[in-house]
Amino acid sequence: MNETIALMKAHRSIRKFAPTAVTDEQLKQILTAAQAASTSSNIQAYSVIGVRSEEKRNRLAELTGNQKHVAEAPLFLVWCADLNRLQAAVRHHKEQADFELTHNTEAFLMATVDTALAAQNAAVAAESLGLGVVYIGGIRNRPQEVSELLKLPKLVYPVFGMCVGIPDQLPDLRPRLPVSVVYHEEAYSDAGFAEGIAAYDATISHYYEVRSGGGKTSRWSQEMTARFRQELLRPHMYDFLISQGFQLD
Amino acid sequence: MNETIALMKAHRSIRKFAPTAVTDEQLKQILTAAQAASTSSNIQAYSVIGVRSEEKRNRLAELTGNQKHVAEAPLFLVWCADLNRLQAAVRHHKEQADFELTHNTEAFLMATVDTALAAQNAAVAAESLGLGVVYIGGIRNRPQEVSELLKLPKLVYPVFGMCVGIPDQLPDLRPRLPVSVVYHEEAYSDAGFAEGIAAYDATISHYYEVRSGGGKTSRWSQEMTARFRQELLRPHMYDFLISQGFQLD
Repeated sequence: MNETIALMKAHRSIRKFAPTAVTDEQLKQILTAAQAASTSSNIQAYSVIGVRSEEKRNRLAELTGNQKHVAEAPLFLVWCADLNRLQAAVRHHKEQADFELTHNTEAFLMATVDTALAAQNAAVAAESLGLGVVYIGGIRNRPQEVSELLKLPKLVYPVFGMCVGIPDQLPDLRPRLPVSVVYHEEAYSDAGFAEGIAAYDATISHYYEVRSGGGKTSRWSQEMTARFRQELLRPHMYDFLISQGFQLD
Repeated sequence: MNETIALMKAHRSIRKFAPTAVTDEQLKQILTAAQAASTSSNIQAYSVIGVRSEEKRNRLAELTGNQKHVAEAPLFLVWCADLNRLQAAVRHHKEQADFELTHNTEAFLMATVDTALAAQNAAVAAESLGLGVVYIGGIRNRPQEVSELLKLPKLVYPVFGMCVGIPDQLPDLRPRLPVSVVYHEEAYSDAGFAEGIAAYDATISHYYEVRSGGGKTSRWSQEMTARFRQELLRPHMYDFLISQGFQLD
């Protein structure tokens, strides 16, 4: 196995950071790697907000569900899908100043995917520099307030945050689903799902048991049931996206 | 600069492949890297369909806008956002067989982002093995027919395809937007957009001119205007997603 694949395989989310700053040179390399990722038809429809200010990090920690690592990490990156810069491009020439961007679900999707591809390169780059990261989906808990804090204009939304810093912990690797239920040859098949989920339930249950010293033994299927039955996750997202000017049609 | 960042910086999309097969060992490493990517709350809401059959690759080449590299690449991966396996997890225990997954725009977003993070790890892993890749957004040109061909059930949709194989070309690196218009310190600012877009227009125009021997000199802002003014991209996506059982609310 080569160094790059070994690095990716060693990924774990870091939620405890040393107080050491991320240097400008490290940040530059992270952003260079991010920008090198593929982008749909070269639209590059994302922006990154880098937050180092302690006050803002504290506020973002609150807004993301009181995640103290968001305040603790020396650098917090907010990865945003951005159609606003495309709007600027469409209006760039003087005679086009009143042009309107036409967009829809597809454009929303392109921008969201562009953002994620760039962010994942950034994550791998950060880890290759000895830094640790954790994605923060909680940035979508209170997206309106996040948008105000970071002055996000219409046509920009925060997809996820990312803490970056020197790791001050080395959590166990979390096992993943058996590849047999994730990879399908030639066509989708759920034939192995029952067996694969049962196997993974046992694996995860054991993993929690060891990590918690026996206190936690829940299974993956139970966790997913708790998460995806009855209560809707972040039910405000549709209205928020519409209020930010996105068109989900 | 370390090897991993150098690799990511050297990324170019490959659209011409040698006929050599991607080995099972290479595929295994690619999938291992993909699965190691972060996933929102461990939901792992994606599936990968690997297509090697020549007949299917030919058909997918047609369905993605007659892209001949889709037929030519020995391996075509279709990256799908997948809430269906979560539905299976929610129904896994006998007494839960009639449970319904609750989902919405947020769940759609989580699955889409999970898919992209895994795919980008796969892309980097493939390149680290000396393979080349290109993302195929054209998989969304005729998503209903793609879904039938690949037997995608409800709650699964193809986010993008990816050609994988030994490169038989080495295209120039495509320049990206100045980092100054992509990265924002502490808060979003469009203050530098006009200048940054103008600079990038000049860069891209020069890049095309050199690559085409003077025949093509279009600017980025012009390309974006052509793409995002008036004609909506893939206007069928919303209806398709709804017909696949996703809830965009």
